[in-house]
Amino acid sequence: MRPVSLHTGAWRFPGAYPDANFNFAHLKRFAQTLERGRFDAFFMADHLAVLNMPVNALKRSQTVSSFEPFTMLSALAAVTERIGLVGTASTTFDEPYHVARRFASLDHISGGRAGWNLVTTSNPDAALNFGLDEHVEHGERYRRGREFYDVVTGLWDSWADDAFVRDVESGLYVDPEKMHVLGHKGEHFSVRGPLNVPRPVQGWPVVVQAGSSEAGRQVAAETADAVFTAQSTLEAGKRFYADVKGRLDTLGRPREHLVILPATFVVVGDSLDEAREKRALLDTFVHYDSGIASLSIALGHDVSRFDPDGPLPEIPETNDSKSARQRVIDWAQAEKLTIRQLAQRIGGVSGLEMVGTPTMIADQMEQWLVEEGSDGFIVVFPYLPAGLDDFVDKVVPELQRRGIFRREYEGATLREHLGLPRPGNRFFGAERLR
Amino acid sequence: MRPVSLHTGAWRFPGAYPDANFNFAHLKRFAQTLERGRFDAFFMADHLAVLNMPVNALKRSQTVSSFEPFTMLSALAAVTERIGLVGTASTTFDEPYHVARRFASLDHISGGRAGWNLVTTSNPDAALNFGLDEHVEHGERYRRGREFYDVVTGLWDSWADDAFVRDVESGLYVDPEKMHVLGHKGEHFSVRGPLNVPRPVQGWPVVVQAGSSEAGRQVAAETADAVFTAQSTLEAGKRFYADVKGRLDTLGRPREHLVILPATFVVVGDSLDEAREKRALLDTFVHYDSGIASLSIALGHDVSRFDPDGPLPEIPETNDSKSARQRVIDWAQAEKLTIRQLAQRIGGVSGLEMVGTPTMIADQMEQWLVEEGSDGFIVVFPYLPAGLDDFVDKVVPELQRRGIFRREYEGATLREHLGLPRPGNRFFGAERLR
Repeated sequence: MRPVSLHTGAWRFPGAYPDANFNFAHLKRFAQTLERGRFDAFFMADHLAVLNMPVNALKRSQTVSSFEPFTMLSALAAVTERIGLVGTASTTFDEPYHVARRFASLDHISGGRAGWNLVTTSNPDAALNFGLDEHVEHGERYRRGREFYDVVTGLWDSWADDAFVRDVESGLYVDPEKMHVLGHKGEHFSVRGPLNVPRPVQGWPVVVQAGSSEAGRQVAAETADAVFTAQSTLEAGKRFYADVKGRLDTLGRPREHLVILPATFVVVGDSLDEAREKRALLDTFVHYDSGIASLSIALGHDVSRFDPDGPLPEIPETNDSKSARQRVIDWAQAEKLTIRQLAQRIGGVSGLEMVGTPTMIADQMEQWLVEEGSDGFIVVFPYLPAGLDDFVDKVVPELQRRGIFRREYEGATLREHLGLPRPGNRFFGAERLR
Repeated sequence: MRPVSLHTGAWRFPGAYPDANFNFAHLKRFAQTLERGRFDAFFMADHLAVLNMPVNALKRSQTVSSFEPFTMLSALAAVTERIGLVGTASTTFDEPYHVARRFASLDHISGGRAGWNLVTTSNPDAALNFGLDEHVEHGERYRRGREFYDVVTGLWDSWADDAFVRDVESGLYVDPEKMHVLGHKGEHFSVRGPLNVPRPVQGWPVVVQAGSSEAGRQVAAETADAVFTAQSTLEAGKRFYADVKGRLDTLGRPREHLVILPATFVVVGDSLDEAREKRALLDTFVHYDSGIASLSIALGHDVSRFDPDGPLPEIPETNDSKSARQRVIDWAQAEKLTIRQLAQRIGGVSGLEMVGTPTMIADQMEQWLVEEGSDGFIVVFPYLPAGLDDFVDKVVPELQRRGIFRREYEGATLREHLGLPRPGNRFFGAERLR
């Protein structure tokens, strides 16, 4: 969510709250509903700018603005008990000390439920809000991102898990032998440390990454706990899954230490026809001006000047996200869609869609899991609250009945929800001896 | 608070929670108690480093670590209704787009209760965590801070108050005529804007400043809504009050548009003797190693190598906070204290102290208000929860009885609690026409 549906027509759907992106009462209700549905986490995407789109599209878009993720997730931490809270932070436009500190704090406040969606920020307009005239080049963003990750995880390991003894009698608050001064000096960062927050409950908050380019996949295989991806078909999903898990094999990382989660846009109906009607109704709320802007953003290229009813021409490469671009191009070619059809279809979301009855959706999800297309899903709700309620009330019980989804939370932390191990501390304990 | 008492012996006081700085359940209770006491705000100081102190002091200090302020205040926003939430953010080590966005988000989530304690960060160790080898020079910090403020407030004005129309029927989410692209290009910052958050509920969150140097006072008079200061005596407080309010006169700003709030360390007893005994007991929990480190930090100079039982020698000027340094020097000279006495007394807090019965404390507070020493106070609790409970249960009713403190919240926002006007938008509405 960002924080609610990414679909640009969602706010106009009957029963939706048009102000939901900025009404905490609604967001609290959504998070509590997800928790009732035993979801692993609430995932919040982000942008560091008002998206650069034509005024005619901008004025129709609920995604023009949203809460800063940390502020919202921290507030949600206080009114939820078990659900994970995954927020986006940029390695290109933030500082490792800040990011390490915030996620460590959220992890403590939430009792081990924090996750960091590590992004290098593909939106070039963000650069203009942070003192740069041009966006940082793609490869350079990834090199900086990799070093940023090393610094953040190093800062999380500033203290042994048992460093804070707080012995009232002797007056010893913290054992200084169990403090590590990072002293990082690298190509992009010079950070002394230590972090002024004890080691997070989870050791390290869960690290989520979304890069699907060659550089992005490799960084994910080396460092991520979870990969957020967009794959339109099961075949594409299986290729991606095999590629990333294969990279883990090469690195000697156990396959189950990284979970692959494709974004899945889900529309639930009591019949297939009803589901399709809901989807079609939703699309009527997307203005062409809005769709063509979403398409232009996905392609990193203004396509509004081409014939709406013609095919998508050759689109030049840009410095933006390569994977998002290629996905749309593949999609256009496979289904022979016109620009207008692409624009209406995309409506702010792209990738995998599941439209049907609870049984049909559960069938598809089960197939993805069994055939190694994914380890789970990032469910994108078409509109809220109804789209969310439908999923929790109708699809979740079907998944539970099949034994492929939990009936109750078994662990307390997000790592436990995802079946991920708690990282050792590189400076203290057993890890140090390796 | 930071987030609990600043006194380095507080965590060892009988009944205190040694882990309170990292136990959200306790912090929630404290915030709710403050709200029951009708406090204006919960104020969270901050540091961007583990304070550079000798290991012997570090290991005894609860202030070695605390939550990142935003994470904590956002979580508290979800479990409180009326109390303001003031957090620290640094203009030297953060970006205006981030800071504008977070405070705008907190203001929306809390229904208009956010406040920004704008600091330029006097702790030189913070620089080492943000890629700098040397700390930024004092005057340069203030120039950057001033421009940072201009950018943040400009970003808060990105949208007219009525820009987000969210008209479902026509599909108009936001009126683009009511969006302003800041396009700031200055000495320190280049920020395009607009902010991707609607205008805050309060127009601008309340801006608090603490600088007491010449540069700090002038910036505060020009820009602050509230000044957090440390004044040891009523005479000093009156001089400071007259100076800052006089600067407002010169600028043509109404005096009541800036409130002056000295930090006040309060110990409540049912008798004066009991209050003094509590204070003395608290001081026994401060180790000399800890006190001498606090003193060295306040002076910006290591004084541990001097004779503990001799007077404070001449201390050279540094690049650190000048006002904190001068305050301690004045204090030593006025009371002819030895270094050991200074170290024990300071215990992590310095400035005004009120130790006595509820009546005596109310008398002192009333005198400060009547004689124009302050417009209110930042109450520093000696230990928690008892020191906080005592204040709310015993001192607040006495202040209410005298008619100098509210019995119920009259407004909904922090600005309303403080009697401050809601700023107009410099780009839209009546303000633009001036």
